[in-house]
Amino acid sequence: MPSVGLGIAGLGTVAQGVLQIIGRNHRIILERTGIDLRVARVASRSAKPDVDLLGAEFGADLDMLYRDPAVDIVLELIGGEDTARDLIRSALMAGKPVVTANKAVIANSGNQLLGSNAEVPLRFEAAVAGAIPIVQAVQQGLVANQFEHIVGIINGTCNYILTAMAQQGTAFDDALRTAQELGYAEADPTFDVGGIDAAHKLTILLALAFDAQFNLPGVYVEGISHVTPADIRYAGELGYCIKHVGIARRSADGVEARVHPALLPAEQLLANVNDVANAVLVKADAAGHTLFSGPGAGGEATASAVLADVLAIAAGSGARQAQPRRALEYLPIEEIVTAYYLRIPTRDEPGVFARVANALSTHGISIEAAIQKEPRAQQDVVDIVILTGDSREREVDAALAEVRALPQVAGEIARIRVESLE
Amino acid sequence: MPSVGLGIAGLGTVAQGVLQIIGRNHRIILERTGIDLRVARVASRSAKPDVDLLGAEFGADLDMLYRDPAVDIVLELIGGEDTARDLIRSALMAGKPVVTANKAVIANSGNQLLGSNAEVPLRFEAAVAGAIPIVQAVQQGLVANQFEHIVGIINGTCNYILTAMAQQGTAFDDALRTAQELGYAEADPTFDVGGIDAAHKLTILLALAFDAQFNLPGVYVEGISHVTPADIRYAGELGYCIKHVGIARRSADGVEARVHPALLPAEQLLANVNDVANAVLVKADAAGHTLFSGPGAGGEATASAVLADVLAIAAGSGARQAQPRRALEYLPIEEIVTAYYLRIPTRDEPGVFARVANALSTHGISIEAAIQKEPRAQQDVVDIVILTGDSREREVDAALAEVRALPQVAGEIARIRVESLE
Repeated sequence: MPSVGLGIAGLGTVAQGVLQIIGRNHRIILERTGIDLRVARVASRSAKPDVDLLGAEFGADLDMLYRDPAVDIVLELIGGEDTARDLIRSALMAGKPVVTANKAVIANSGNQLLGSNAEVPLRFEAAVAGAIPIVQAVQQGLVANQFEHIVGIINGTCNYILTAMAQQGTAFDDALRTAQELGYAEADPTFDVGGIDAAHKLTILLALAFDAQFNLPGVYVEGISHVTPADIRYAGELGYCIKHVGIARRSADGVEARVHPALLPAEQLLANVNDVANAVLVKADAAGHTLFSGPGAGGEATASAVLADVLAIAAGSGARQAQPRRALEYLPIEEIVTAYYLRIPTRDEPGVFARVANALSTHGISIEAAIQKEPRAQQDVVDIVILTGDSREREVDAALAEVRALPQVAGEIARIRVESLE
Repeated sequence: MPSVGLGIAGLGTVAQGVLQIIGRNHRIILERTGIDLRVARVASRSAKPDVDLLGAEFGADLDMLYRDPAVDIVLELIGGEDTARDLIRSALMAGKPVVTANKAVIANSGNQLLGSNAEVPLRFEAAVAGAIPIVQAVQQGLVANQFEHIVGIINGTCNYILTAMAQQGTAFDDALRTAQELGYAEADPTFDVGGIDAAHKLTILLALAFDAQFNLPGVYVEGISHVTPADIRYAGELGYCIKHVGIARRSADGVEARVHPALLPAEQLLANVNDVANAVLVKADAAGHTLFSGPGAGGEATASAVLADVLAIAAGSGARQAQPRRALEYLPIEEIVTAYYLRIPTRDEPGVFARVANALSTHGISIEAAIQKEPRAQQDVVDIVILTGDSREREVDAALAEVRALPQVAGEIARIRVESLE
């Protein structure tokens, strides 16, 4: 396939990134791969902006993208869900390979789409962690491995906010406002800071690593709005950083799929991935621990991944089409076993710590480390901070219900899971 | 190609790793890829050790590997150079695809081997950075990019020694001895600590990133034996870690290819890759900075990369065979422009610093930071430590020749390049 015609849906930052890269690197890509990328058609419902379309036909009709015989590969870069999904399905049914950056569509509708015309490639490297070739790493570079766990910092907005909170001691609301001013967070940030975006990406990674169907509803999701500067400070004293992570893990009891803030050991590389960067740590049985980091968003960075998929399809790469994948239920969150960080605000009375420790002990929860601070000035409330040993979440819930009922407890208890990354 | 017969040359740790992975993961690989890996034949000149050969024929005759019609892909895992190169060439000429983990052979003879039968795949993911799929990342994941620089910690022995020196304050000789006791360094460590091994890997990365021929003789090579605990300590005070790196960089003057210790900003992820781990930082025009880290050696870790190549070939992946690549001369080391760390032991007399600064200034070298320590007890020798601005190495050489001639200079001057990683 020496000359390859592209049909691009959308004209947002990623589509513009694709046009910019092809405009700049067309010759070097041709020399390297023998593939002559041409942009045959661009379709966008918004007015044609001041962008060099590289000679492509332009129109509002998305369906022309797969009907036009000059288009060999359709690039779905419009975002959103329904229209994007319909376009992908129609293109595949028409026999046109599709490349998409759309995590929501793959996480929600990937099973049907990949099953709809299995002979025609549908690739989505850009849907997870932007420029980082993590889909390829899991599917090809580590293909001979059994995956034990994947822990990813896969939402740049959350990482930016938590980094700012850690480095400047600011509260969540202030850090969010700064992120919005800098364009790192949307006006409605729920999707990012609530963890939904990370859940989409985790769903995709999990399906690839465990050869399973996409199962977004099975993922446990928690955002970062409840993390306080005090938690970040205490975590630091205990040797940890707090990051928002997506975790897929095969344990003795089943497969865990969860998105939430977590304490990570500060000396681990993953804990040092800051600002808007993304990173994915993979533990596999043969390769051991490998880590992949880079920009998780941005026009050209995401477009770099889109074009990797385009060129793989154009080269006729035998990347696996979805076999009929098995359905996979994840372990309910109550059944996971991990360590916990607990912050319990209490009135400073003798014997409080003993009563908390007793409640934990009743449920088989050991205390690995603890911090008890002096009461703050003009307040008699003191934080008891505890790092537990590995415990089942159900037991932690039960113990905390008892602790919450103690008359000395003087506020909301913070509970954040701890990941050893081992 | 549903059933694929492998012919394995060698029975060292990597070959054993391949056998272990196939023994353990055969079924999951088959389910995932549809490829039924069979080990048809193992050839080794050493006696058959106590290893499960998975039913393969065993013999000492390497040539049987490509003559046996049951072998579809030859795995060259014997190490060394001449025999390995001859085997690879013979197998390619016989039309058998080859996978090798042999960096020395690819760096030294890759041009001829890749040119000898371009229709037949020759892959070498395992030759660079063990388990990390960095060859694939450069050739496929980032294929649409122009590469600006690659900075890699690509020798685990050097990284182990420098990490031990930094964390325990030990001298090079002591850290080397520990590394040897732990099996992280050879009895004759020259190949690793002298930088040759890293030069092999850099040569390969550079050829892939810059679409050029392998040019090992053009790489500037410096080892780590001259790095002292004092240098590591001073670097730390200035906010840097010292790592042994391979650097490929496209600058205004040409392409740089150099292996040497370097000061890296301590807050950068790459500077925090410790012990025997490897990592490669890539800066590309569209993707920005991406980093790939993991185990650079080890039987199964390296075998994971070998099997990724095997499965790519078996899947008929259209990974590019070497086009006729262009020859590429690298910039002579005197012509590079970077920042420098200088440690100048001087007798503690008034005006010494001014004379040093004057010599640097004469050659257009600015001083960005400096440390002047109190003289050590019962000694009147004091270290002047300087971090220069970006300077041409030729000018630094000339300035240091003048400094060396100062009567107050009381010992060997240390000079270590500084990498901003930007």
